[in-house]
Amino acid sequence: MSDFRPSGRQPDQLRPVVIQRGFTRHAEGSVLVCFGETRVLCTASIENRVPGFLRGKGEGWVTAEYGMLPRATHTRSDREAARGKQGGRTLEIQRLIGRSLRACVDRNALGERTITLDCDVLQADGGTRTAAITGAYVALVDAVNVLMKRGDIKRNPILGAVAAVSVGVYRGTPVLDLDYAEDSDCDTDMNVVMNDGGGFIELQGTAEGHAFRRDELDALLGLAEKGVTELLAAQQAALSA
Amino acid sequence: MSDFRPSGRQPDQLRPVVIQRGFTRHAEGSVLVCFGETRVLCTASIENRVPGFLRGKGEGWVTAEYGMLPRATHTRSDREAARGKQGGRTLEIQRLIGRSLRACVDRNALGERTITLDCDVLQADGGTRTAAITGAYVALVDAVNVLMKRGDIKRNPILGAVAAVSVGVYRGTPVLDLDYAEDSDCDTDMNVVMNDGGGFIELQGTAEGHAFRRDELDALLGLAEKGVTELLAAQQAALSA
Amino acid sequence: MSDFRPSGRQPDQLRPVVIQRGFTRHAEGSVLVCFGETRVLCTASIENRVPGFLRGKGEGWVTAEYGMLPRATHTRSDREAARGKQGGRTLEIQRLIGRSLRACVDRNALGERTITLDCDVLQADGGTRTAAITGAYVALVDAVNVLMKRGDIKRNPILGAVAAVSVGVYRGTPVLDLDYAEDSDCDTDMNVVMNDGGGFIELQGTAEGHAFRRDELDALLGLAEKGVTELLAAQQAALSA
Amino acid sequence: MSDFRPSGRQPDQLRPVVIQRGFTRHAEGSVLVCFGETRVLCTASIENRVPGFLRGKGEGWVTAEYGMLPRATHTRSDREAARGKQGGRTLEIQRLIGRSLRACVDRNALGERTITLDCDVLQADGGTRTAAITGAYVALVDAVNVLMKRGDIKRNPILGAVAAVSVGVYRGTPVLDLDYAEDSDCDTDMNVVMNDGGGFIELQGTAEGHAFRRDELDALLGLAEKGVTELLAAQQAALSA
Amino acid sequence: MSDFRPSGRQPDQLRPVVIQRGFTRHAEGSVLVCFGETRVLCTASIENRVPGFLRGKGEGWVTAEYGMLPRATHTRSDREAARGKQGGRTLEIQRLIGRSLRACVDRNALGERTITLDCDVLQADGGTRTAAITGAYVALVDAVNVLMKRGDIKRNPILGAVAAVSVGVYRGTPVLDLDYAEDSDCDTDMNVVMNDGGGFIELQGTAEGHAFRRDELDALLGLAEKGVTELLAAQQAALSA
Amino acid sequence: MSDFRPSGRQPDQLRPVVIQRGFTRHAEGSVLVCFGETRVLCTASIENRVPGFLRGKGEGWVTAEYGMLPRATHTRSDREAARGKQGGRTLEIQRLIGRSLRACVDRNALGERTITLDCDVLQADGGTRTAAITGAYVALVDAVNVLMKRGDIKRNPILGAVAAVSVGVYRGTPVLDLDYAEDSDCDTDMNVVMNDGGGFIELQGTAEGHAFRRDELDALLGLAEKGVTELLAAQQAALSA
Repeated sequence: MSDFRPSGRQPDQLRPVVIQRGFTRHAEGSVLVCFGETRVLCTASIENRVPGFLRGKGEGWVTAEYGMLPRATHTRSDREAARGKQGGRTLEIQRLIGRSLRACVDRNALGERTITLDCDVLQADGGTRTAAITGAYVALVDAVNVLMKRGDIKRNPILGAVAAVSVGVYRGTPVLDLDYAEDSDCDTDMNVVMNDGGGFIELQGTAEGHAFRRDELDALLGLAEKGVTELLAAQQAALSA
Repeated sequence: MSDFRPSGRQPDQLRPVVIQRGFTRHAEGSVLVCFGETRVLCTASIENRVPGFLRGKGEGWVTAEYGMLPRATHTRSDREAARGKQGGRTLEIQRLIGRSLRACVDRNALGERTITLDCDVLQADGGTRTAAITGAYVALVDAVNVLMKRGDIKRNPILGAVAAVSVGVYRGTPVLDLDYAEDSDCDTDMNVVMNDGGGFIELQGTAEGHAFRRDELDALLGLAEKGVTELLAAQQAALSA
Repeated sequence: MSDFRPSGRQPDQLRPVVIQRGFTRHAEGSVLVCFGETRVLCTASIENRVPGFLRGKGEGWVTAEYGMLPRATHTRSDREAARGKQGGRTLEIQRLIGRSLRACVDRNALGERTITLDCDVLQADGGTRTAAITGAYVALVDAVNVLMKRGDIKRNPILGAVAAVSVGVYRGTPVLDLDYAEDSDCDTDMNVVMNDGGGFIELQGTAEGHAFRRDELDALLGLAEKGVTELLAAQQAALSA
Repeated sequence: MSDFRPSGRQPDQLRPVVIQRGFTRHAEGSVLVCFGETRVLCTASIENRVPGFLRGKGEGWVTAEYGMLPRATHTRSDREAARGKQGGRTLEIQRLIGRSLRACVDRNALGERTITLDCDVLQADGGTRTAAITGAYVALVDAVNVLMKRGDIKRNPILGAVAAVSVGVYRGTPVLDLDYAEDSDCDTDMNVVMNDGGGFIELQGTAEGHAFRRDELDALLGLAEKGVTELLAAQQAALSA
Repeated sequence: MSDFRPSGRQPDQLRPVVIQRGFTRHAEGSVLVCFGETRVLCTASIENRVPGFLRGKGEGWVTAEYGMLPRATHTRSDREAARGKQGGRTLEIQRLIGRSLRACVDRNALGERTITLDCDVLQADGGTRTAAITGAYVALVDAVNVLMKRGDIKRNPILGAVAAVSVGVYRGTPVLDLDYAEDSDCDTDMNVVMNDGGGFIELQGTAEGHAFRRDELDALLGLAEKGVTELLAAQQAALSA
Repeated sequence: MSDFRPSGRQPDQLRPVVIQRGFTRHAEGSVLVCFGETRVLCTASIENRVPGFLRGKGEGWVTAEYGMLPRATHTRSDREAARGKQGGRTLEIQRLIGRSLRACVDRNALGERTITLDCDVLQADGGTRTAAITGAYVALVDAVNVLMKRGDIKRNPILGAVAAVSVGVYRGTPVLDLDYAEDSDCDTDMNVVMNDGGGFIELQGTAEGHAFRRDELDALLGLAEKGVTELLAAQQAALSA
């Protein structure tokens, strides 16, 4: 057991990952994803319309919304609906989720419909955006399978799998999948979204303490590749269950 | 088995009620309440401040906020945070929950602190506001017990228990605890909030189809009394577990 | 003369009711309704369109908006237009007025048009929502008569009359039509909307102090029936004038 | 009788002016002002605080808010509270009213308190802003007299009287006090606010059709001087009643 | 050199005026206008649509928006986009600019298109709205010339030139083109918009200190006529360059 | 000359960079930065207060706001102030600028004051956020020097220099400093913020077309290092001028 991570994990060890399909009943895809104590409910909803800028082009759209229940965190946060607007962090995260999932979809094959991925954090312990992307992919596949079964689309628009993980330099050591205790006390962290072809879809690194050096960056990318590989396997296992 | 309720229930029969404490870990009280397929997460959060109008008076405050995840329902609803305001229905429900819970609290005994009850609907099948009140009471008791254990307050501010149920006239017959299939096809419905002394705290009846007669009203109140008695017992069982 | 009500009224006595039609000139119906010192201007406006969810169905819509002039009350309230949103109380009241009036209209007979009832409180002394419903009914009838005279509709869509009154337990005694002095110092109050067939359309009871017992509830409903009967007569007298 | 103004008035003739004090009961000043069919309720409310930028300076503040009931006009306008913001026209008018009234007040003599003039149009037929200024002055004097009677202030802060009228070029002829029929069909109009010393406080002229020449401007100013003189007399008559 | 104006200017002397066309490259018209240290970027944008109330009428629209960069002024102002609304002063100014420019356009000749004049203050030193109108006219002409060159319109919709200047009574003397030092310490000021036929399009005079007398008003109008004549010449010089 | 970049630049060639200090006069720092045709006005404003979460801690704050003039782009965008909120892209960019600049400031040495960096895009041609960071650094240094000269702070809080550049894969080749023509037609792009110690402060990479491989990422990071080195030199040259 590692003696420096608060959780006792090894530097390259993910938290236990649980991906539970069919968590709620109305959505075409509904997945509860847990990265340790972080729990996010990801639903995929199909609607037979597209945003104005796509109307009449025969293409579909995939988008995401992100929310955090007020007491998902240690202290209560204001409810964004009550404050009258979504904060910058929320908008940034939901734009990231949307771009990441669009990267694995052939929008022509989807036809003129929208799939909205709602990612709502029931409990937060670091890494909510990476858990959301990883879970939303499974919800998206379930929703697409509904369309395929109904015969609404002929060709499967899923181009490949997508998963995400955070990495960071914690007390001088690169580590995988930061939890809240690490995240709030770390120098540098990066969210990495990859596909199952080993390609990078999104990289968002921030040096909160000292700037990170090129060799640290290389180590972090290596950890991310390992973590995403395991998450992709967990997604496939859940989808085969 | 009843042959006219879609669920096969008897007219005076509640749906199965589940009250699960400690559903999430950060809140001082966290309860998942299920009335059949309706599932609401109720958290109670303690903060050491009160709204402006109470400052310096030595009294506490109990308030509620209500939300529905976008895909808790059959078709996706817009996220209120994205639309930039809470709708009238939401405000109405959260005001009802707040008043109902304040009715069972001695705010002087609570001291200058606020307990906020966040009631978030994960899955909706009718009766979300009555489930929310019933579950929020349990979360409130758990939060108050945290304050008692910490020694922050000396006298228990809980004056009694509160629970709520809906009743309505469905195809001419008064029935208890409407589910969505009944609610969307019923003439008249009423939400009833009662305490464990048999007193009425809130009554909100609406005739959507034909106006209800005095004898129907009497029958509905009788059903509500029966239902609330069972819900109060379920709360106590959960709190004793 | 009663010696316990601040106004000297008997427990079952309404305040003087005045219903003045044609108060302003542009609206199809324009009624100033006074319940004692409470004065509400109710206008009915006809528009040849319906909300999106009704378009193309051949049905009409009846809706209400409620406002209070900033200095209708003892101390000035912020103007909702300046604050940038309608408060929860406002939304709740206007939803109540709208539902109450829709209960007396055959929306198929109305055709694809909307009647909006604007209820603006010029002076408040308790019971503004019940005065608004009672006055809005008269404005609605005037507006419908404009449509009938113009030949725009053939069948009168008004199904019956609707009026409303508040009742409450004041210092232990059930009383009718609470004014502000009573309302701000009473344990329990209830707003009751009824039609001229003796049916209940809306019941909204709130126990602000002690919960109300079933026998108190029965006494309150009896008072409400008496009060509404008198208000329905006052409406007819105004409409016949 | 003039044969070209829709109302039959002479070019230099005001509409009948009515100034009714004490129209509602809660405000320190409450005036219904009518310029013909234009009716505006002006209330003056005293509060013992000033905006942040004046705090601790020993000076008072006078400000105004303006609103129009949705059906004050020929066709219903959206309620600004429901739309979530005050329009540009509203803001412009209430800023004008506020500046005009501040011009007749010694804010040091007022002390650290705010008088808010709420001008709400019950019925509109052109000239609502000039009626509002004229009526608000009377409400302001009534509110100041309340302060004087209470002994809250020693020196009367009213420096002089203020009234306002519109003038315009209608079908080539300069006319006084435009009503809606004239206003909506006129080339040029100007709102003129003056004090009882014959000084100009505000001039707002707009050429909607052809630009106005210097000689037309001179004629309009002459008409305005005549109209304001009559309005100042009507204010004094109302205040002496 | 004048010894009482902070700038040393003569009472009837404008600040140096610079009108620089083509300041940015994307807009159909882009003008940086400087009245001394006041600098406003005015762009004219053509769009092939009109607001709803003009659709299908064959007429065009000319409108304006006004903004001030947060640090255009001595102390930083909040960004209106961050505050979530445009203030009353902003709305008032942009309405003034829009009306002024519409006064010199034949909207039938423009056809169903909108020209939007964005006037953004890079640096403020008094007179931003008059500089904006003066510069926006030049941007408008440039945009119209684009339409003419493209052959999109056949007849030039520009009816004449429009320019604006402020005048005021500073320390008892009427002066032309107030800068910030004068504006913030002056009794009375007026913004005057005129066309090249010598007609008045807008007059907005405000007595901040003492009300202005008719003879002062006459002097101010004379100064404005002189100032606008010079500004119209500067516009023509810029357009001929 | 390169034959595949629309601008004819070499793959590793920046656009001409201009950094003009003192562009406007009121701000403590005011810099116009041009990356080719992209022009951003960056002002630094000092205020002697900090946000609530820092009050009383003796630390300062550095924050940024970002805006784009409506016609900075090829087609006019809505003004965010008029729409009533800042979009997700705007919030994301201003958060990035703020984090980047805070990374080079010792907030204890700054004391309890806030420096706000307003970055307003006058003309856009790709890379507005990287130009903004690069220019804002220079404005920040100028503002800090004002504080030093005034003797308000003793120790220089600037820890080092920060600059930013974009890199991307355009038609299969990694290139430096994308302009709009490249940005809108490229597969992958990344914004890189670095300090003068060669450390990475922010990395934001997005694969819009195909996911990028590890070797492409390495090439992009190399280009970014080269570009930032040149930008840091341009900053120093401007500051020495």
